[in-house]
Amino acid sequence: MRPTWVAGAAMSRFGRLETTGREAAAAVALAALDRAGIEPGKVELTVVANAFGIAERQAHVGPLLNTALGIPQVPSFTVESACSSSSAALHEAFVHVAGGFQDVVLVVGFEKLSHLGTLAATSYFAMGADYPFESANGATFPGLYATIADAHARKYGTSSEELGAVAIKNHANGARNPHAHFQKEISLATYLASPVVASPLRLYDCCPFSDGAAAVVVAAAEAVPHPSAEPAVIRASARAGDVGDIHDRESMTSLAATQTAARAAFRQAHLEPREVQFLEVHDCFTIAELVALEDLGFFPPGSAGKATREGVTARDGTLPVNSSGGLKAKGHPVSATGAAQVVEVFEQMNGLAGSRQVPHAEVALTHNVGATGSSCSVHLFSRR
Amino acid sequence: MRPTWVAGAAMSRFGRLETTGREAAAAVALAALDRAGIEPGKVELTVVANAFGIAERQAHVGPLLNTALGIPQVPSFTVESACSSSSAALHEAFVHVAGGFQDVVLVVGFEKLSHLGTLAATSYFAMGADYPFESANGATFPGLYATIADAHARKYGTSSEELGAVAIKNHANGARNPHAHFQKEISLATYLASPVVASPLRLYDCCPFSDGAAAVVVAAAEAVPHPSAEPAVIRASARAGDVGDIHDRESMTSLAATQTAARAAFRQAHLEPREVQFLEVHDCFTIAELVALEDLGFFPPGSAGKATREGVTARDGTLPVNSSGGLKAKGHPVSATGAAQVVEVFEQMNGLAGSRQVPHAEVALTHNVGATGSSCSVHLFSRR
Repeated sequence: MRPTWVAGAAMSRFGRLETTGREAAAAVALAALDRAGIEPGKVELTVVANAFGIAERQAHVGPLLNTALGIPQVPSFTVESACSSSSAALHEAFVHVAGGFQDVVLVVGFEKLSHLGTLAATSYFAMGADYPFESANGATFPGLYATIADAHARKYGTSSEELGAVAIKNHANGARNPHAHFQKEISLATYLASPVVASPLRLYDCCPFSDGAAAVVVAAAEAVPHPSAEPAVIRASARAGDVGDIHDRESMTSLAATQTAARAAFRQAHLEPREVQFLEVHDCFTIAELVALEDLGFFPPGSAGKATREGVTARDGTLPVNSSGGLKAKGHPVSATGAAQVVEVFEQMNGLAGSRQVPHAEVALTHNVGATGSSCSVHLFSRR
Repeated sequence: MRPTWVAGAAMSRFGRLETTGREAAAAVALAALDRAGIEPGKVELTVVANAFGIAERQAHVGPLLNTALGIPQVPSFTVESACSSSSAALHEAFVHVAGGFQDVVLVVGFEKLSHLGTLAATSYFAMGADYPFESANGATFPGLYATIADAHARKYGTSSEELGAVAIKNHANGARNPHAHFQKEISLATYLASPVVASPLRLYDCCPFSDGAAAVVVAAAEAVPHPSAEPAVIRASARAGDVGDIHDRESMTSLAATQTAARAAFRQAHLEPREVQFLEVHDCFTIAELVALEDLGFFPPGSAGKATREGVTARDGTLPVNSSGGLKAKGHPVSATGAAQVVEVFEQMNGLAGSRQVPHAEVALTHNVGATGSSCSVHLFSRR
């Protein structure tokens, strides 16, 4: 495997896209290439991530995107892995470049569902679960993650205040991120006063439905002798799966796919959790951030909530988590999320994060989950 | 790149699936692994191809499939590239194995739309085109390919009898294929009497809407020291793109993506067209087979129709094309098609093709197109 970089990355503001998804995709692709200082003509493969293009009656987006970029002859395909679609796409790009098949691969994730309304969006999201056994019986993701939160609370005593601490922290970060869907801080009182969506999860435990797009330019180090920006070296790219239905798993308080992918990633990178300086994890619900931090090996099981309340994972803490605002505040346009996590890594490593800049931005981890953890990607990055 | 094989391949009968798509996918996966003599536990990555899972309200199929196979921890993702989805998935599998990232990768393509009816199926298919510019203006694939056929006829004098010769040949082959959707021969009289769908294309110029599933086991040669079946060595795996809309292309009588992918594939394999002994090409409409044979370099532009009428591409001709029956007679379950082409190659190379066995089955080509040629995959295979 040859040294492989994130040479550039960019995203739209998450929230509501007024353009078509493909237009947003083209815009972020051009922005990411511009940051990388790489002409579109150098792109040799485009990997699109898009789960619900059917909402715009548009499948097979790659050729349309490539045509907009002036590179119609370049091959493309679309990756879907529920909410981990664009980290799965990033993994493919990494394999192609690290394996020597291409020098420059463009990853573009996007989703646009807002025009269909919240009910339709929920029903689309639910297709990422096991339809006959979960969704068809009324189990949508808020309910499934509430089940995990309930199990976690019963086993470890995880409190509303601990869940709320995740939401408060991520909203505080989102308030400093111009890309974020929600750019407002919330208080514990606001959190506790918000309605229960699926006990024990309240409204402020849940990420929003967002539209958005994000792009990542993956390039062989040797193909970019004079990078325009500080590249994020891809130290590891690992993925894993798990049983789809949470009722069929051995544990409801951890995600085996996160554990498996994390072990593989740390092994591949020759790194240990204590060397990671900041990370973006998949906080589709607040409980998911706590479980992720435990499964990734940063905190012992049941202790991430306490650490969060103590400020360890705050932007100015010893281990900043979701400095972007996370899915919770930055928003969660399904197939843009994994790529957007990498945008945060790239911006932090390049000192472009403004008032949300973390103190140490040399080694980072991203963690992106599909559904309730039946797919997971873990990536590790470092500055040169 | 290390030597990489198709170690096993299998498919369902195409037509109408009475099971869910995922059940059909699991069945063909087990059949392909059985033919390869490889235990499911050896699979390290599953690449699913599925374009319209939303028709069953089921995205994110990989983890469900892997759970059914007893390997839930194995990573997976879904590839979509319209009608070329499973050849794009095969390409990813090839890259992973040839690049040394995994030893055994399972490719499973499937589609199930029949329960929605023909009108819905047409509207799903149309999402593979450029929605705002083509589909939204009423252009579905029969009309788009009719435009290509009309241009081809105006330029080269391509006749109904030449188009009909493709249909007659492929139905004759399908009649000998127990996997085929249509297992009946047709006559020129039947062809000519069939109603015009989109001039000049008649009903018998069009492939059917089919459900179906097909699986391919891709393995490193060194990982299968004692193969259970004769492997099809993957000599080349190449893909290319093109402008989505046919009205924006320089030519309407050829597909640039086919030409680009074919050039790359022959270069990669160190082979020339004259060395290929049989091939499966993307005959979603009869005109598509003629254009493919010209673009791939087997016949000069405008001459494939005459060659077809003369029997050159018949099962007992000098260059058998679509011995499986092709999309035309075997059927076209969008994301199963590319993988099913490889099933035909595998069965021919293993002498498993029964009464449709071709005389020389050492070197083969498969050609799979997305939409009207905005994506194309070309693979070359040989026996050891």
